[in-house]
Amino acid sequence: MLETISKHRSIRKFKPDAISDSILTEILEAGTRASNTGNMQLYSVVVTKDKEIREKLWETHFKQNMVLQAPVHITICADVNRFHKWCELNQAPVSYDNFFWFINATIDATLASQNICLEAENNGLGICILGTVLYNVDKIIEILELPKGVIPLTAIVLGYPDENPPLTDRLPLDAVVHYEKYKDYSPQAIEKLFFEKDNSEFYKNIVEENGLKNLSLVFTERRYPRASNIEKSEELLETLKKHGFFNHK
Amino acid sequence: MLETISKHRSIRKFKPDAISDSILTEILEAGTRASNTGNMQLYSVVVTKDKEIREKLWETHFKQNMVLQAPVHITICADVNRFHKWCELNQAPVSYDNFFWFINATIDATLASQNICLEAENNGLGICILGTVLYNVDKIIEILELPKGVIPLTAIVLGYPDENPPLTDRLPLDAVVHYEKYKDYSPQAIEKLFFEKDNSEFYKNIVEENGLKNLSLVFTERRYPRASNIEKSEELLETLKKHGFFNHK
Repeated sequence: MLETISKHRSIRKFKPDAISDSILTEILEAGTRASNTGNMQLYSVVVTKDKEIREKLWETHFKQNMVLQAPVHITICADVNRFHKWCELNQAPVSYDNFFWFINATIDATLASQNICLEAENNGLGICILGTVLYNVDKIIEILELPKGVIPLTAIVLGYPDENPPLTDRLPLDAVVHYEKYKDYSPQAIEKLFFEKDNSEFYKNIVEENGLKNLSLVFTERRYPRASNIEKSEELLETLKKHGFFNHK
Repeated sequence: MLETISKHRSIRKFKPDAISDSILTEILEAGTRASNTGNMQLYSVVVTKDKEIREKLWETHFKQNMVLQAPVHITICADVNRFHKWCELNQAPVSYDNFFWFINATIDATLASQNICLEAENNGLGICILGTVLYNVDKIIEILELPKGVIPLTAIVLGYPDENPPLTDRLPLDAVVHYEKYKDYSPQAIEKLFFEKDNSEFYKNIVEENGLKNLSLVFTERRYPRASNIEKSEELLETLKKHGFFNHK
């Protein structure tokens, strides 16, 4: 397996060392080599080094230490704005201001994100993808001055690692792979596939720290409670409407 | 740059040679090493080799030759079903049947997709990501028997390449990268950034073949016309509602 893929772990502690422009350019070029819809490259990459702006972004990412520590903060956005403007300039009709293209652009942006992560790691850097982007899309839009048709989806913090964590556990391959067609899970299958997770010391400690009965409850009651998920669903849909991806109702 | 990243091109002509199980397993393992939301692995990978099922999938992918040629067809899906079932088994409340988690799962599935592509190429295989999944989500759900909470997002066809196409052009890096904040595009900037695309022999031929005035119109009038985009937007939203991602209205 590609060493860069097999050795990936998220880094949450960074040295203050700067990243050279030549390495950064190589990483960004790698992003653009990913497959994308119709070669339209429906994404934009915002590279933020300025400390003041990074502090504002840090606030939207729940003030996690590593977000301030990392010298470079990359926000990857679904972007139909650039393509729209090109079409406009050529008297071509507006075509991408709808939900279908939000999803296409999301896929483009995410494929590019993974190339960026791997190429960063290939250059000795550590990365962490911030899943917190989706909690504060509106604020990030404001901070980075994203126009209509541009939605932030993933953020990656980059820097030289100041820790060397172990690989993260994964479910057995059989849990995520289906052959020929999807084979739905019986309760027995779920029990078997999650056995290692349910019984690992690592997760047992987390369950205990949270004072809960099991690991599932850590996810559904502490980390991702239903009320917050519903609120965020509605906020996200509202933002997509305001920002030009629902002009079809 | 990682050679696998820098040399990627989509392959649309495959030899009939089978892919060994050990290579396939390595590719799938690579998929699972990608970052994902809260280590919940909200995706599933359906690996289809059976000719009859591949023929049905081929029909949903606009009957492109390469889809039948490639010996392996991988469909990668956003999947909250497995996690739901685990939570249910542990008396944890339902939490992921909403739009917010469709997007989180979409990002997880797409990051895994890119690892799968790169690891396939690292093993000498050629790949093509089929953007056509989103045109026939309902039919693919039916063919692969995907339950509620599972939505196909990308499909990758894999096989040994029977062609060696050149690298595909990309916009200059400046077109997709913004420093510090987003810098919106003036008409002059758009003209400059798309100059090479607008003036390449390759695209000029395509414009001519289509009997149109310029390349933008090839996209907006031929390939991705507005009426179809709107229809597909509404279909996709309908599918998400039917398949358990909008239980919050």
